[in-house]
Amino acid sequence: MNLILLTKNDFIEENIVEIKDSKLKHVIEIHKPALNKELTVGLVNGKIGKGKVIEFKTHSVKLEVALIGNPPPPLPVVLIAALPRPKTLKKVLQVSTSMGVKKIIFIESWKVDKSYWKSPALNQDEIEINCILGLEQAKDTVMPDVSFRKRFKPFVEDELPKLIKNRTPLVAHPYNASPCPAGLKENITLAIGPEGGFTDYEIKSFQKLGFTTVTLGKRILKIEFAIPAFISKIY
Amino acid sequence: MNLILLTKNDFIEENIVEIKDSKLKHVIEIHKPALNKELTVGLVNGKIGKGKVIEFKTHSVKLEVALIGNPPPPLPVVLIAALPRPKTLKKVLQVSTSMGVKKIIFIESWKVDKSYWKSPALNQDEIEINCILGLEQAKDTVMPDVSFRKRFKPFVEDELPKLIKNRTPLVAHPYNASPCPAGLKENITLAIGPEGGFTDYEIKSFQKLGFTTVTLGKRILKIEFAIPAFISKIY
Repeated sequence: MNLILLTKNDFIEENIVEIKDSKLKHVIEIHKPALNKELTVGLVNGKIGKGKVIEFKTHSVKLEVALIGNPPPPLPVVLIAALPRPKTLKKVLQVSTSMGVKKIIFIESWKVDKSYWKSPALNQDEIEINCILGLEQAKDTVMPDVSFRKRFKPFVEDELPKLIKNRTPLVAHPYNASPCPAGLKENITLAIGPEGGFTDYEIKSFQKLGFTTVTLGKRILKIEFAIPAFISKIY
Repeated sequence: MNLILLTKNDFIEENIVEIKDSKLKHVIEIHKPALNKELTVGLVNGKIGKGKVIEFKTHSVKLEVALIGNPPPPLPVVLIAALPRPKTLKKVLQVSTSMGVKKIIFIESWKVDKSYWKSPALNQDEIEINCILGLEQAKDTVMPDVSFRKRFKPFVEDELPKLIKNRTPLVAHPYNASPCPAGLKENITLAIGPEGGFTDYEIKSFQKLGFTTVTLGKRILKIEFAIPAFISKIY
């Protein structure tokens, strides 16, 4: 982790934060605080800066913080992903957040195992933990908007048209697809299927709305690796 | 897994393989064999093709195989990575192998925790398991050459010059670096540092040999995500 993400609740005075409870363990392990050491910090959805350790006890660390910088710019991507298995969901959240994606929608697809929808990994708390890991990795502070759509058809018909307005809509698909474009400057909406891919019906639903099917080549990557590969290629 | 990687030992006749033991569980779970079902198979370091299920028992599955296709072309990349923590090492092997990297060297670096070198994840068997996962994901058969160098200086001075001959040498580094080049056609040698990056001395050692420092931007990714991001960008 390259930054400690603070919340307003961590502040005990205007410039002083106190880190304790579950957060403290993580900070001690990763950031090895010591008196007067400066750590990189950021306020959730706010600025980034430095926090100087002014008190270091077993159960609490106090930092004097100066938040003066802006977080890195967001990536102009709306990411739509077929809901992956729970362990993969965590990685997808982490890597997408690290890369700067600010809107992520997990959707149903024929090949998504129904049991995935019942996983505790979908709980708000768990989602947040993984987004925070992603933000801290990339020295970002701006939480992404993460949501879930349990029915493919109403999502595609009622909501998706709005999500591609003034955006280039791309769907990652290994068959009958164009090479993934590179060096784009515009906003995109990128859809990525489940293990085994979207069904023909699903691909056609995307195409009907104007999505282009794109591929990185013959080698099919796991979704957590396909996301950085596609995004890094596209921009 | 998109392909079942066979070894010569699996063959009981010229075109017949019998899958049993530890491999069987994996094949049953992922590929759901049924009589006459055709599965995608490949012979390690050989051709790919189809295997038709001709016998399906609790403890063994027999396939009639026809190996006629070539695996996807390799990626002209030599990957040099600071040894990551054991859990990450597995992912790095999987994703690099999936992407088609055929030569991977894990090296010492100042910020590599010494304990990592003692992990069972470095055992030949463990390495192989993770490379096979990567190959099966990408429908590839050609095992990469994976090796380890426990001392930075002799590696860089004695061996690295040969590893960059007729190759473009790039070192991923977030500071004072050029944007990562895109759309290259040539062979490259790509070095990626540990969490926290290479030290100044280490970066200078690379630069002295002609390496260019390259970056994907302000956002620092974990190595298992940086690898697909860099490689996908470069080619």
